[in-house]
Amino acid sequence: MALTTTMETKPKPSSLLFTDAERRGVYRAIYERRDVRSQFLPDPIPDAVLGRILDAAHHAPSVGFMQPWDFILIRDPQVRRRVLDNFVESNRRAAQIYEADRRQLYESLKLQGILDAPLNICVTCDRKRTTGYGLGKQSIPQMDVYSTVCSIQNLWLAARAESLGVGWVSIIDNQFLAQSLGLPEHVIPIAYLCVGYVSEFPSTPDLERAGWFKRQSLAPLVHFDHWDGRDENRAREMLDAVR
Amino acid sequence: MALTTTMETKPKPSSLLFTDAERRGVYRAIYERRDVRSQFLPDPIPDAVLGRILDAAHHAPSVGFMQPWDFILIRDPQVRRRVLDNFVESNRRAAQIYEADRRQLYESLKLQGILDAPLNICVTCDRKRTTGYGLGKQSIPQMDVYSTVCSIQNLWLAARAESLGVGWVSIIDNQFLAQSLGLPEHVIPIAYLCVGYVSEFPSTPDLERAGWFKRQSLAPLVHFDHWDGRDENRAREMLDAVR
Repeated sequence: MALTTTMETKPKPSSLLFTDAERRGVYRAIYERRDVRSQFLPDPIPDAVLGRILDAAHHAPSVGFMQPWDFILIRDPQVRRRVLDNFVESNRRAAQIYEADRRQLYESLKLQGILDAPLNICVTCDRKRTTGYGLGKQSIPQMDVYSTVCSIQNLWLAARAESLGVGWVSIIDNQFLAQSLGLPEHVIPIAYLCVGYVSEFPSTPDLERAGWFKRQSLAPLVHFDHWDGRDENRAREMLDAVR
Repeated sequence: MALTTTMETKPKPSSLLFTDAERRGVYRAIYERRDVRSQFLPDPIPDAVLGRILDAAHHAPSVGFMQPWDFILIRDPQVRRRVLDNFVESNRRAAQIYEADRRQLYESLKLQGILDAPLNICVTCDRKRTTGYGLGKQSIPQMDVYSTVCSIQNLWLAARAESLGVGWVSIIDNQFLAQSLGLPEHVIPIAYLCVGYVSEFPSTPDLERAGWFKRQSLAPLVHFDHWDGRDENRAREMLDAVR
């Protein structure tokens, strides 16, 4: 955890600097954010709080200042029930690639909180929005999708700072979702999120506690100048200073 | 800006809660983050600081706990010069879709800080990593790419808290980049970032100040229950509480 280390940089103009508490807030949001499925409370989210996390999403970086996102706030239980039905079917198919113990473990996991959370948000990307005049997306056309994902991560971290949990439901048929929410052809769903207050933010991810997978070591994922420039010792030395 | 509003939620268990300063830190990072091209200083980045922003990236959400990312830290001026050459060529082609005044404005924009920043980072996604056993990416195969983008946004916000600027260079040929950095076939570049201390974080994005495009109003991007459930008045009321 990065919370106890001291600043080692030389002094910067004060408007650039975060106070220790502000900086701690950013790292708390990053380290304490969870993909929430099981801890949702039914308490409603005040408009001001919801407004703040949406405004945070809207301040994500976007290619050419394109701002390609939309936010569909879903409270209607009927809509959410249809989405849950689609999840159940998609998840049944997904389970089939696992066998024996792994299959059993998979089927024991809770992978969505669609009805438990008081609010679902579908974040979409308008592939044809002319905002930004296409700047920056000619070489990499999917940059608009990446911008939308950045807005989702902004929302997720702001939510943590507001004590709101967020869960991203990825076991879902996007074509069904697009049809079901009436999206125009050029607008694609990027994320289906469950959002609500929680009873707790567990200290480790659900999948880790359930024994599905562990957090990997970071050092082997750091390369120097070239893919082949892996140097685990050098990376470990750098990363050791973090803790 | 969300910085001056008061908490309106009912009290939560204290371990869930952020202090006002911690919460302000999260919103400062979100609102004061910039896509930096022109304000880089050559000052080196201490290992501990670099380690912290990489560790922040490594704590992004990832589908099935896949952790599909790698980070190539590029300081070698020769590598960076080759990337810059590719940018220049890609940008020359990109400029051709604009005409007259818009073309002139485009050509006046500074869209990269590859050599100005002391460090470049290429963030990649390993499409075949078996970590996480494929959980959550059968319905939406590109979830691993989305996870990688979340890690980039974590890095970007942590960088702001450390007074480091980040610029995402999207005018670049990813095939060239993959070849040039020696990526295996199943590993794709997602972002090419320029990272360094800055002389300032301007209060508005470069593209806005240059007159390329303005920030859009958020209210028309908020829908209720269905794409057709746009209600600008209702959205505006909710969002007015933010300021």
